[in-house]
Amino acid sequence: MRNKYIDNIDCDTAIENFKREVEFSERTETISITQALHRITGKLITARVSSPNYNASAMDGIAVRSADTMEARESNPFILEEGKEFIYVNTGAPILGEWDSVIMIEDVTELEQGRVEIIKASKPWQHIRPIGEDIIKGDPIIPAGHKIRPQDIGALISGGVLEVEVVAKPKVAIIPTGSEIVEETSHLQVGKIIDSNSHMFMGMVEEFGGEGIRYSPVKDDFDTLCETVSRAAEESDIVVINAGSSAGTKDFTVRVIEKLGRVISHGVALKPGKPTIMGVIDGKPVIGIPGYPVSSFITFDTFVKPIISHYLKRRDGRRSVVEAVLSRTIPSSLKHKEIVRVSLGYIDGELLATPLTRGAGVTMSLVKAHAFLAIPREYEGYSAGSRVEVELLTSLEEIEEQLISIGSHDIVMDLISSNLHLSSTHVGSMGGISALKRKQTHLAPIHILDEATGLYNVGVLKKYFDDSVCLIKGIEREQGIMVPKGNPKGVESIRDIAEKSLIFINRQRGAGTRILLDYLLKTQEIFSEEIVGYDREATTHMACGIAVKSGDADAALGIRAAADINGLDFISLSYEEYDFLVREEDLKDVRIEEFISFLKSDSFKGKVEALPGYRVKNSGKIIKNTV
Amino acid sequence: MRNKYIDNIDCDTAIENFKREVEFSERTETISITQALHRITGKLITARVSSPNYNASAMDGIAVRSADTMEARESNPFILEEGKEFIYVNTGAPILGEWDSVIMIEDVTELEQGRVEIIKASKPWQHIRPIGEDIIKGDPIIPAGHKIRPQDIGALISGGVLEVEVVAKPKVAIIPTGSEIVEETSHLQVGKIIDSNSHMFMGMVEEFGGEGIRYSPVKDDFDTLCETVSRAAEESDIVVINAGSSAGTKDFTVRVIEKLGRVISHGVALKPGKPTIMGVIDGKPVIGIPGYPVSSFITFDTFVKPIISHYLKRRDGRRSVVEAVLSRTIPSSLKHKEIVRVSLGYIDGELLATPLTRGAGVTMSLVKAHAFLAIPREYEGYSAGSRVEVELLTSLEEIEEQLISIGSHDIVMDLISSNLHLSSTHVGSMGGISALKRKQTHLAPIHILDEATGLYNVGVLKKYFDDSVCLIKGIEREQGIMVPKGNPKGVESIRDIAEKSLIFINRQRGAGTRILLDYLLKTQEIFSEEIVGYDREATTHMACGIAVKSGDADAALGIRAAADINGLDFISLSYEEYDFLVREEDLKDVRIEEFISFLKSDSFKGKVEALPGYRVKNSGKIIKNTV
Repeated sequence: MRNKYIDNIDCDTAIENFKREVEFSERTETISITQALHRITGKLITARVSSPNYNASAMDGIAVRSADTMEARESNPFILEEGKEFIYVNTGAPILGEWDSVIMIEDVTELEQGRVEIIKASKPWQHIRPIGEDIIKGDPIIPAGHKIRPQDIGALISGGVLEVEVVAKPKVAIIPTGSEIVEETSHLQVGKIIDSNSHMFMGMVEEFGGEGIRYSPVKDDFDTLCETVSRAAEESDIVVINAGSSAGTKDFTVRVIEKLGRVISHGVALKPGKPTIMGVIDGKPVIGIPGYPVSSFITFDTFVKPIISHYLKRRDGRRSVVEAVLSRTIPSSLKHKEIVRVSLGYIDGELLATPLTRGAGVTMSLVKAHAFLAIPREYEGYSAGSRVEVELLTSLEEIEEQLISIGSHDIVMDLISSNLHLSSTHVGSMGGISALKRKQTHLAPIHILDEATGLYNVGVLKKYFDDSVCLIKGIEREQGIMVPKGNPKGVESIRDIAEKSLIFINRQRGAGTRILLDYLLKTQEIFSEEIVGYDREATTHMACGIAVKSGDADAALGIRAAADINGLDFISLSYEEYDFLVREEDLKDVRIEEFISFLKSDSFKGKVEALPGYRVKNSGKIIKNTV
Repeated sequence: MRNKYIDNIDCDTAIENFKREVEFSERTETISITQALHRITGKLITARVSSPNYNASAMDGIAVRSADTMEARESNPFILEEGKEFIYVNTGAPILGEWDSVIMIEDVTELEQGRVEIIKASKPWQHIRPIGEDIIKGDPIIPAGHKIRPQDIGALISGGVLEVEVVAKPKVAIIPTGSEIVEETSHLQVGKIIDSNSHMFMGMVEEFGGEGIRYSPVKDDFDTLCETVSRAAEESDIVVINAGSSAGTKDFTVRVIEKLGRVISHGVALKPGKPTIMGVIDGKPVIGIPGYPVSSFITFDTFVKPIISHYLKRRDGRRSVVEAVLSRTIPSSLKHKEIVRVSLGYIDGELLATPLTRGAGVTMSLVKAHAFLAIPREYEGYSAGSRVEVELLTSLEEIEEQLISIGSHDIVMDLISSNLHLSSTHVGSMGGISALKRKQTHLAPIHILDEATGLYNVGVLKKYFDDSVCLIKGIEREQGIMVPKGNPKGVESIRDIAEKSLIFINRQRGAGTRILLDYLLKTQEIFSEEIVGYDREATTHMACGIAVKSGDADAALGIRAAADINGLDFISLSYEEYDFLVREEDLKDVRIEEFISFLKSDSFKGKVEALPGYRVKNSGKIIKNTV
């Protein structure tokens, strides 16, 4: 029993069709004004009292009878007696009885024995705020459908409004499904996945103005699913089922909705997010959201947000949009609209958008994304250098202060991230060199051995750059062979790996560690074909360490720290230097200055030396290119 | 005992000085990830488990031993047996034991008796997500100082992080002061003001990421104030005193801070907001905020927000900024930076910013403001037509859908506001005509009698416009004289007001009601000087009604509804027509179309006819200008 996607309809059409079929029963509730921040008003709200509700002095000064002062002139000063002809008033004091005018304290000469002199007539109602000057009883304060801000709360209370009628928050049932899905736990079994999407959805519902109701994960069992969804449709205004929306044998969502209500569409022209299902049960919207974290975020954002807005009678709250320059070409299919995650950075005063991985399963790409770029269905993609509009997931201010690093990975990058605002992307040393050449990064961390000189990194300066680029010295780290605890296969050298036909896992092309391997193979006259798994790639030291630890590989090349963390044995080969390429003009950038002073700090040195296999020499020193 | 402002320092300098003197004791707290939305991380957060934590199928299909399939070709199809040579796997299923490769279900031909045919070799690790492909144990997930978003919660849970260390929300004590300030009440005494600012501040603190602690209003008594502020400084991280920051005899705030700690500055070059005080008590920031609602909002935003951000180690969260064209010239003094409230509207595709009243006491100007325009101290203002940057207080989406009306006021405008997105500004009929001429509004509601023809409004079309402007018929309303209940002075006509020397309150210049008065005075040969209070102006019917009710005036001209609401007697004079000027090209605008169909609706007619003194004739009909 596999499902087929019936549809591949446009997102906008899908949402319009969906909204047409949904019948919300409108609910409002009356709440205290002190609880009303960010709620949506259910009707026009009018003032119950005027503000001020009495004639009030608008100044610090004296209240007088204007008629008494009519003849006062500079040539004919008047003396007034306190209590009889004037009273002192502060700003806001009531002006009652016979008093009908206020003179500012600055225009009064205070004499002895409670008397004052004035030299000007005071007009009736001068410096008096009349009743209702600010808010008049019965006048509207805020319209219906308005999101209540702090300043509205102030005005409403001034207008005597202590309770407000607001649109009830729509209740959004969130049902995680799947026999492999378990509640968060500290002891995760193999084959089980912690339910994380539903908690992400709870946060999204809160941001969109709804009230999330999270259900415990439901196993892939048709009857249990029907029972849960049916209950959710009774208890809530909107039902979200995650996942089971795909075409696998255990994907029951379509059949559950068909049984309890009606499926409106299954399959949208969106990538990621194709398997999305929209349906109704008793007029209430039910949405089947795919399981992969990135697909689930994007489809929830694309389809659940407008339904919540629809309930609240608000327009879809699109995030802020800014223009950026695309750093790489992104092809896209005419079959669907595509949402691409991008990281943003200000380089040379320009906002640059760099596409992140497009895999739907890669949660971290969602965390690292500063913005979404939507490629419309009718576009075959965008070419590098295009000016595109992106929807911000992070504030521009946060992006402005970020130092961009693209290149090789090392755990000191994490150390730096803890102390500076660093956006770090790991594409290997050669990837970093390209990015710096294209001016897409401030820093390019590298560790490349020059086979001719046996020196690290300085060769790169001469080979790829002119004197506009220099090197900031970083750290030195011990490279070697990672093998399981106890070294069961008795590995002592690279040659052993080849000769014993051990299963190896390599680093990706362009990685400094791979270049080291190639250098060792070459000097020892071993062919890469002799290494089983030479073509199997991982992108970090840790990934290699984990492969060895889990038995997926017998050996890998990497740094001592990765071996230590995974409890592996380590056969030392050499120390390599991990440094940072930077454009000389950027040395004046305050972000780079902060970076260099951090590298030079005792705090940094202390922390690095405490790491196994690390040492520090000349950190923060600048090496110019003597081409 | 009056205070003097010592300082008139720049806002930025004031904040920098202030931050330097403040010593925060940093606090963090460990909370459940499900409670962590929008909190700020206290340190780098790394993964506790890998995700996936097992080798997982990336596809729906079959798991095989890759070695078994090596020889499969289209010319040499292989038959595999379930359980022995393959197992079915869904996406996410664990790939354990001898299985090391996955074939997509689409590439498999399913035969009978649990057998399948494949026609291609399957490479090792094909379609398998290796352990840690997404998140590797020990890898950083989010940096320190990061505001946690829903997607971060998803990734953290996937990485096995169930608790996070976040920066504690700074506790902000909010102390309302002033003997006239009372808690919200339904029976407000004369001379008392409901404390509204502190509730507005509570909302602002929440938006800025702090935790507000509101104190009950404190009377103007030095010892009580000292006791309360001292307690607040112990219990909180930041103390806000509102108000008593000015120079009045009861303005104790400076002296309280001087006694308990130290005043850093008193008086900033900001309008409104000059009397702001900054000080420290035991290293904790204490801010004295002026009392007028608008000043209090602006100074809280200007000085308390950056201090909260400073505590959270975040940059000041500036709101979104957009460019707009200024509709009117705003002069400003070189003595201070000035924050001007503006309303925004899209007219002819351009975002137009119109300055609202600059009075510091006018709360409603804050509610109506869509944005703030800051005029730097070194500018003498901006001229009409300037392109200026404004800081948004309302989303651009909400502004986009707003219909702009500038002109005369009538309570049907409130009725319309309840049903359509209307931004309505009341400047009288003549003000509306000018605004329409300058293309600053979509609608200009008017009620102007043509003295020659005795007809309403059509004369305006001919006199001021060409055929590009037409009239949408609105409603008719009964105008007359409002007098106190029982008509104690026996008023029967306008002449009575003059002859009995009654105290009158007039409408502002350009108001249709004032034009009616002038017309009546002229036809009855009464001089305006004969009317006591002819020069005293109010801007709405309701304001006139309230003046009569409170005894501040004996009579006023206005509509029956204003008399009825205030329980006044009413001497009918005539029915006047209240219509809407509109540019003909705007008739195609969807917002105007909606407006016209609402005027034509039975719902509108029913509601209008239910108002005393109102009638409907041809509502929504368009009268073209036959110049």
